[in-house]
Amino acid sequence: MHFTSDRRNGDLIEREFVLGEIPGVLWAPARASSPVPLILLGHPGGLNRMLPRLAARAEAAAAQGFASVAIELPGAGDRPASASATRARADLQRAIAAGGRPSEEVIDRLVLPLVEQAVPEWQATLDALLELPGFGGPVGLSGGVVAMGVRLALVDPRIAAAVLFAGSYVPRSIIEEARRVTIPLHVLLQWDDEGNDRQLALDLFDAFGSTEKQLIANMGGHTGVPRHAGEDASGFFARHLVRAC
Amino acid sequence: MHFTSDRRNGDLIEREFVLGEIPGVLWAPARASSPVPLILLGHPGGLNRMLPRLAARAEAAAAQGFASVAIELPGAGDRPASASATRARADLQRAIAAGGRPSEEVIDRLVLPLVEQAVPEWQATLDALLELPGFGGPVGLSGGVVAMGVRLALVDPRIAAAVLFAGSYVPRSIIEEARRVTIPLHVLLQWDDEGNDRQLALDLFDAFGSTEKQLIANMGGHTGVPRHAGEDASGFFARHLVRAC
Repeated sequence: MHFTSDRRNGDLIEREFVLGEIPGVLWAPARASSPVPLILLGHPGGLNRMLPRLAARAEAAAAQGFASVAIELPGAGDRPASASATRARADLQRAIAAGGRPSEEVIDRLVLPLVEQAVPEWQATLDALLELPGFGGPVGLSGGVVAMGVRLALVDPRIAAAVLFAGSYVPRSIIEEARRVTIPLHVLLQWDDEGNDRQLALDLFDAFGSTEKQLIANMGGHTGVPRHAGEDASGFFARHLVRAC
Repeated sequence: MHFTSDRRNGDLIEREFVLGEIPGVLWAPARASSPVPLILLGHPGGLNRMLPRLAARAEAAAAQGFASVAIELPGAGDRPASASATRARADLQRAIAAGGRPSEEVIDRLVLPLVEQAVPEWQATLDALLELPGFGGPVGLSGGVVAMGVRLALVDPRIAAAVLFAGSYVPRSIIEEARRVTIPLHVLLQWDDEGNDRQLALDLFDAFGSTEKQLIANMGGHTGVPRHAGEDASGFFARHLVRAC
């Protein structure tokens, strides 16, 4: 992990880094009683475009004493595109434009390779960060491509709690993996999201093996998550990440 | 409305009353900048048995500056039982014990007469209370038999916001009424409640005409609503009842 910039923004220290070929950003509270819990900030890809929103989420997390980190997704932003992902995305959009539901095969072809590649990248990021002084865990996972979150929560015991956005396309095999996820979960769903398969999202929530899971469905379309829903998610992390590091 | 007792309990003034034949309890913050918003506390019937839990909810509401009121349901507690409701309840329990889903006819026979009788009683309670000095509205509705909440929210424009517990048996005609409810809603659902028709609860949430509605599903069975869910509901009322009275 190689840091390429370091600037202070109010109570937040923002540091850009590269991990191999992967660009990322780390936000840490300027005044931290070390070590601080760390939140992995998921996003749909395109780190530069997402930065203002990610920085706002990091600022809210820092107010609770948490550090945050985001990395670029495979094939997104400045990272080399994958020809097969580009084809799969076009097939998916064609199915949606035709008013139909994308086939399981298209969803698998788009999402599963992304999960296979991105989850080890998140884990490598964690490996590197948790070696730095001041970062001790526990680790929370917040949003992003939900299938990726399911896999990461399943395979990495460092993830102590997760806020997930249900609703993007989820392969059936990932719903089966969700049955073995047991960490506390706070699952957000936009009830009237047109680009969303609501029943699949409910099936995913139902599948999770966690005894502590909460589904929060709001109106307002894909991007209309209300402000208070973000505050409730902060409360969730405050309950689950504030333990002895 | 005739008050029969008046006692101070910490920061709360608790007054029992009768309205005609209906017993009720009113809780008001001892130090109120009048007039205060009022929350109707619903419950499943049996006011005396429910008093400790209702008083705790009233105390939380008073901490936000809200008064609370509860009245006994028709046919419950010391009020005369209805022979037809008793029969309908027995039929419902027989269907559940046999492992089946109660028929629409049994649900209608149990719930609709209760709604028909209870909603005007709630409205008469509101009429009487809003004439007292210190109570100015807006009025929030919190929990209780959900079908009753839907009808009251539909017919009484004084109800400005409602926290509803989805999951008890809801007649199909009430789901149709829900389409015309437009106030902000905070809908709680116990996801794994054995005595609960989850799909009916989701259908009810979907039906509500409100542009601002939130579904919050938790684990923990029928009585296992987690503590933080109550806090989120308080936040909902704080957002919607704190306006100029």
